[in-house]
Amino acid sequence: LTDADIAALDAADPLADKRALFDLPGGLIYLDGNSLGALPHAVKARVSDVVAREWGEGLIRGWNDSAWIDLPFKVGDRIARLVGAPAGSVAACDSTSLNLMKALTAALALRPERPVILSDTGNFPTDLYVAQGVAAMLGRGHALRTVAPQDVAGAIGDDVAVLVVTEVDYRTGRRHDLAALTARAHDAGALAIWDLAHSAGAFPVDVSAGRADFAVGCGYKYLNGGPGAPAFIYLRPDHVGAIAPAHAGWMGHAAPFDFSLGYQPANSVARMTVGTPPVLGLSALDAALDVWDGVDLEVVARKSAALGDLFIAEVEARCGAFGLQLASPREASARGSQVSFRCPEGYAVMQALIAAGVIGDFRAPDLIRFGFAPLYVRFRDVAAAARTLERVLREKLWDRPEYRLRAKVT
Amino acid sequence: LTDADIAALDAADPLADKRALFDLPGGLIYLDGNSLGALPHAVKARVSDVVAREWGEGLIRGWNDSAWIDLPFKVGDRIARLVGAPAGSVAACDSTSLNLMKALTAALALRPERPVILSDTGNFPTDLYVAQGVAAMLGRGHALRTVAPQDVAGAIGDDVAVLVVTEVDYRTGRRHDLAALTARAHDAGALAIWDLAHSAGAFPVDVSAGRADFAVGCGYKYLNGGPGAPAFIYLRPDHVGAIAPAHAGWMGHAAPFDFSLGYQPANSVARMTVGTPPVLGLSALDAALDVWDGVDLEVVARKSAALGDLFIAEVEARCGAFGLQLASPREASARGSQVSFRCPEGYAVMQALIAAGVIGDFRAPDLIRFGFAPLYVRFRDVAAAARTLERVLREKLWDRPEYRLRAKVT
Repeated sequence: LTDADIAALDAADPLADKRALFDLPGGLIYLDGNSLGALPHAVKARVSDVVAREWGEGLIRGWNDSAWIDLPFKVGDRIARLVGAPAGSVAACDSTSLNLMKALTAALALRPERPVILSDTGNFPTDLYVAQGVAAMLGRGHALRTVAPQDVAGAIGDDVAVLVVTEVDYRTGRRHDLAALTARAHDAGALAIWDLAHSAGAFPVDVSAGRADFAVGCGYKYLNGGPGAPAFIYLRPDHVGAIAPAHAGWMGHAAPFDFSLGYQPANSVARMTVGTPPVLGLSALDAALDVWDGVDLEVVARKSAALGDLFIAEVEARCGAFGLQLASPREASARGSQVSFRCPEGYAVMQALIAAGVIGDFRAPDLIRFGFAPLYVRFRDVAAAARTLERVLREKLWDRPEYRLRAKVT
Repeated sequence: LTDADIAALDAADPLADKRALFDLPGGLIYLDGNSLGALPHAVKARVSDVVAREWGEGLIRGWNDSAWIDLPFKVGDRIARLVGAPAGSVAACDSTSLNLMKALTAALALRPERPVILSDTGNFPTDLYVAQGVAAMLGRGHALRTVAPQDVAGAIGDDVAVLVVTEVDYRTGRRHDLAALTARAHDAGALAIWDLAHSAGAFPVDVSAGRADFAVGCGYKYLNGGPGAPAFIYLRPDHVGAIAPAHAGWMGHAAPFDFSLGYQPANSVARMTVGTPPVLGLSALDAALDVWDGVDLEVVARKSAALGDLFIAEVEARCGAFGLQLASPREASARGSQVSFRCPEGYAVMQALIAAGVIGDFRAPDLIRFGFAPLYVRFRDVAAAARTLERVLREKLWDRPEYRLRAKVT
């Protein structure tokens, strides 16, 4: 495509004005919003206000006067819209890992006769660790069975208690079919927990239509809540009364401020919350979610697909001679909002690319990964990134000492 | 005491200059720092910098460049000094409730033959809920046995796997003897988990000398980390190799960025961490901990005792006729940094007191509670609070409609 073609794509972008809502450093192309989302302007003022006024002046009164106590559910409701969940079914709290542990212990208790937790090798490792930890803790013969992503559907036998999968593979961007795998799990009598870490905010998710039993996800990727932002958990409303939270704490109690000695879980998703809400993190995430006001996720998904398609075309046209191979699905509907290539010397190449002003990510053994957050990534950024990658490879910048300075990238 | 006597106490206070490190609203006496600590000035600049520069400009690079990844242990080491723990044995992470759950599941696995979790009715309810949730989840016949605080020592029989108690009673301020009860637990073959929520930053704690097996605590009370700040967990170093975390997640892995499919716990307290660290909350807590630089906790404890003693003397002298009864230990060494009175119409009295500019707290059925954070509460504040309480009671301010406007206080 010519520069004029690229400019025309940006000019026609219905999300183009959203970029102005973000702080983006000059001279940098940021293609790692799937790892840590960029800073929405609104977060700065909100966090300052929470610290100086709500906390500093309000002190303990902030729990009521600033409605801190409602934040997990206010923020949860805003995320609910993005993942197709009804209001009142999502809480923003804790980390993705811990939320998965809550969902998993609850799910296993609903299927006491079944020993298998089914996942796949494309899952983010922390999800597998959570399952391993829970299985060992329970000591009732549970086992984590991990199959290749394409073998998940066929592995859902009648010994499977629960399917635990991440919709979008963090390395390749490959997408599972949430509705189809959930239906397959239900047909086999199993439950399905979905990790939406790389889904929420990247394309429309519909946990309701897909009948997911539980879902968890991350606040700091496409939701832009900041480093280590609170995560979220969805509990399908008809499961509320059926599950007894193993993670019982005062915020999940039906009447936390009665300070009664016996745990009585709240009759809502609140029973999936445990300790005191992290007000700073939840406030930042709340302000960050403003950027989604009025945004149609179908439009987001179309732009995501177009950005990825453009990047694949440009990289293959420019860098094919250097041994790069597409590691992501070529079909946009089969991937999340990211594209990865297998790349010889990928680690050093990514270091050089970052030094040259394009931030992507590296994943062992040889993947260079690029995320496209449709609210702030432009078509011109994608085209320029491909050109810079070509220069890094053609001029072997990755082999020069000045590009090897940085020791590590996460 | 005369006003001159009070002024002399403040003039002789070796911690007097610490107050200037805090933002404290004018016209207010804040005696609820045991529920939510006041705002240290340094937090404002730090949080703004973390948001605008570290995140906004650094983006994903912040994990390395701003050492976000080390925050749980950097902050943990600062807390370690305050609770008598060696460097490297404390992590700042998650909530107190979830940290207790981690400690409890680990402890129960170390005592597989023993069914009883022992606690007391003075424990903060969330600790009891955690124990109830864990016992039900494990399904191996564990039971929570809850006795009166004074009966704990005598209840540590050979069926007890673990003692779970909070050192300072959140309502009355009564203190348990950490070293003595831990020794008693060990003599009986049990482990001891200490909740230091109302201890850390209030007086010297020595988990090492006291041989506590695990400890947990709160970042937002005397540590002033802000509403819902990250909590902390201490793991006695010689237990590290013996426990297999049930709460397994990538941050607790020996090599998180290898993304291996099998969980291998870190050979340190890091194995008690789970998900991605909450950078905003940890940064606020880190900055808040600056106020402890150079502070001797013995000096803190002496001032705490003196503040409490003064308050008791003033309230009893001024308010005895109105039916108030001391609910806290009279002996300072037997209580934390708070004093409570049983007070008829206590809820309305506390509302009126707050409206009159003295913030304390109410706990059902009839306790009015006052916390004394020695770094920012002055003797003149304590004396003035007692005078205001006298006025509320003498003039029956609590019975006037304008003081009944506020519906609720947490």
